[in-house]
Amino acid sequence: MSNPVLVEVFRGETVESRHRGAVIVTDGDGKIVFSLGDIERPTFPRSAIKAIQALPLVESGAADAYGFGNEELAMACASHSGEPQHVAKAADMLGRAGLDVSALECGSHWPAQQPVLIALAKSGQEPTPLHNNCSGKHAGFLCTCRHLGIETHGYSALGSPEQDMVRDAMESVTGAPHALDRCGTDGCSIPTYAIPLKNLAHGFARMATGVGFEPVRAAAARRLVDAAMAASYYVAGTNRACTVLMEMAPNRIFVKGGAEGVYTGALPELGLGIAIKCDDGSARASEAIIATILARIYRNEDELESKLDRFADREMRNWNGITYGVISPTEALTDADIN
Amino acid sequence: MSNPVLVEVFRGETVESRHRGAVIVTDGDGKIVFSLGDIERPTFPRSAIKAIQALPLVESGAADAYGFGNEELAMACASHSGEPQHVAKAADMLGRAGLDVSALECGSHWPAQQPVLIALAKSGQEPTPLHNNCSGKHAGFLCTCRHLGIETHGYSALGSPEQDMVRDAMESVTGAPHALDRCGTDGCSIPTYAIPLKNLAHGFARMATGVGFEPVRAAAARRLVDAAMAASYYVAGTNRACTVLMEMAPNRIFVKGGAEGVYTGALPELGLGIAIKCDDGSARASEAIIATILARIYRNEDELESKLDRFADREMRNWNGITYGVISPTEALTDADIN
Repeated sequence: MSNPVLVEVFRGETVESRHRGAVIVTDGDGKIVFSLGDIERPTFPRSAIKAIQALPLVESGAADAYGFGNEELAMACASHSGEPQHVAKAADMLGRAGLDVSALECGSHWPAQQPVLIALAKSGQEPTPLHNNCSGKHAGFLCTCRHLGIETHGYSALGSPEQDMVRDAMESVTGAPHALDRCGTDGCSIPTYAIPLKNLAHGFARMATGVGFEPVRAAAARRLVDAAMAASYYVAGTNRACTVLMEMAPNRIFVKGGAEGVYTGALPELGLGIAIKCDDGSARASEAIIATILARIYRNEDELESKLDRFADREMRNWNGITYGVISPTEALTDADIN
Repeated sequence: MSNPVLVEVFRGETVESRHRGAVIVTDGDGKIVFSLGDIERPTFPRSAIKAIQALPLVESGAADAYGFGNEELAMACASHSGEPQHVAKAADMLGRAGLDVSALECGSHWPAQQPVLIALAKSGQEPTPLHNNCSGKHAGFLCTCRHLGIETHGYSALGSPEQDMVRDAMESVTGAPHALDRCGTDGCSIPTYAIPLKNLAHGFARMATGVGFEPVRAAAARRLVDAAMAASYYVAGTNRACTVLMEMAPNRIFVKGGAEGVYTGALPELGLGIAIKCDDGSARASEAIIATILARIYRNEDELESKLDRFADREMRNWNGITYGVISPTEALTDADIN
């Protein structure tokens, strides 16, 4: 089965490239509000589920014990750009638990955002694990371990107490079995499990609504989603899609991208969850898809809808600043009737 | 019509992402030796046709007048990495025609290859138009203008004498009409025309064989293809797919990638041309596809076939160096019987 083309990349009047994918919007009960494409296909959610992976940090009491506010919790849910503020925040989170960069098991990489990378290189510094886009998540894992008195070394490994807690949270929130035969290793070395896209959307609808959660989990979920929305710079960074989209409707829209074309969303006021996977792993396409889905959902708010549509359907410029084409969602998305 | 899945990206045992595309191999007469997918679809060839775009440089006598050897001609066909040797070579080409960087109309960009970008940023320099991956092609355009006594200013614009020559060469070599309604603007600001993939393959089969060319064009085509193969470092750069693939069979394989998932190939000894377009514009996929097609073509040379297959079907590692998956061509490609 082939998923529909959801985004087209135009050069002049001609379609140059095409992106296929699947989308689903559900409510807290898992009722499908809208879908396109194969929503049963096992999909690695990658970084799009960091908010769920951060539940043990809050539920264990670690976040309170270390005095974490919105910025720290946003960092725990983040794929940040490695800007100086992100690096400092990750170091501070570790410091509150008596740890430092040497405890991080996520590895190092140069920032993916070119201006951040260039600034770091010009400064004469080299990236450390604090610059890793996942350093906030890993700092959260480490703080959970410290608070619970669990050995920190090896916290990222399959079968460690920390990763068992994370997997249990994922399994419980999404309702999808997290089986070893669907387990892979993520970019930051922790286990990641492929689950159906529909479970991913349902999981985020539950994060938004708390439907079916025990009170402690419902409160933790809402606290994390609220923190990410309130401190959206710490979830991604300057000019990053997640940050820009969340800033369009402060404290109303939660979105989170993941590698290989994944996006999730949680809309507490509407009680909806969203999950997107672009077949080919494209970020430009998944960003256009989430923005278009949000635009249709907020079709009764002209200004917000218009901002979202402009983000989704955007001009591309070449090295001389000349507009050569557009990235456009297809009618399958723009005509979507989402209720 | 949907093109077949040609490349799958595995994480663990699960397919994480999928790339669709079309492939065609023809001989110099345009006879289809092998094809998969829609080979009629108009496709922007982008940088994959730089060797054809360089024909006027050689045919006009400019290349001889300025003493261009393999390295300079390879640069004229290049999407180079902006390494110091590339930058120096582009400056030297301009200098031979009494020009300098100020004549280039390609714009500036930081090198796309991270190690090159980091080295440049650490050095305290900023990129100039000489660092643009197209600077060698543009230097070739400028040298052609100077040699012919054509105004250099505006050489990159649609309707300029230089771009008319380039379009005429493209039209004649590929046999595809280059109509304004299929014209777009390329990354370096010159016009680019979408043409059927089958014409692109046939064009490169003719570049390899000279079939149907006047003697001057046949000699120019072969000289450019030979130069690119002989000085393949100048066509791309350190660890770049084009350079690595050409080095696997010195002076036997010509390949050239283009933006948005395009690849072309010319095999003079076999008289074949190749054209590839990955639907979604992915470079990782188009590189895997061209390597697999070459592996099947050279199936009777075990060592070369094995090198090509290892390039096509490669392990991916995360920030800690852990292998998490593979990029693999599908059976549609690996089982291809290309005669």
